[in-house]
Amino acid sequence: MPHSFDITPFIGYLAALLGTVCWVPQAMKVWQTGETRALSLWANLLFLATVTLWLVYGLLIGDWPLILANVVAVALVLAIVAAKLKFG
Amino acid sequence: MPHSFDITPFIGYLAALLGTVCWVPQAMKVWQTGETRALSLWANLLFLATVTLWLVYGLLIGDWPLILANVVAVALVLAIVAAKLKFG
Repeated sequence: MPHSFDITPFIGYLAALLGTVCWVPQAMKVWQTGETRALSLWANLLFLATVTLWLVYGLLIGDWPLILANVVAVALVLAIVAAKLKFG
Repeated sequence: MPHSFDITPFIGYLAALLGTVCWVPQAMKVWQTGETRALSLWANLLFLATVTLWLVYGLLIGDWPLILANVVAVALVLAIVAAKLKFG
């Protein structure tokens, strides 16, 4: 049997990591500029509900990568929603 | 044994559905207003990479809910990135 290496789990981990990290520049941008007009409040509230549900799901199935990724995501998306509510 | 109902998978399905649907109001908003200044290009490019990786992961493990949710997400995030590149 030839040596085989399955890249599949790494693609999943990379997606999970990137899906959290990607909100850092958006959260920084809105707080640095106070500019939030283009952001949809509905989209960000629904996305906050989404990452909160993933966090609850992670807690229910006891999956640490899911829990950690979504604790960070909830914090970042909360920061974006707070900026939208503050700056309008 | 008392009747028991496990809500866990429904929380996962709801999170998957909401995580796709939530980008509809943002995609509509940027194309209706042409206003994209508050959007971080980096955040949206990294999020486009994220949903593309989830789609690839779904294809690799043959998971239809993951594939369908992320085909829709890739289309919506592409529309947001395209608006950002067009309107600046």
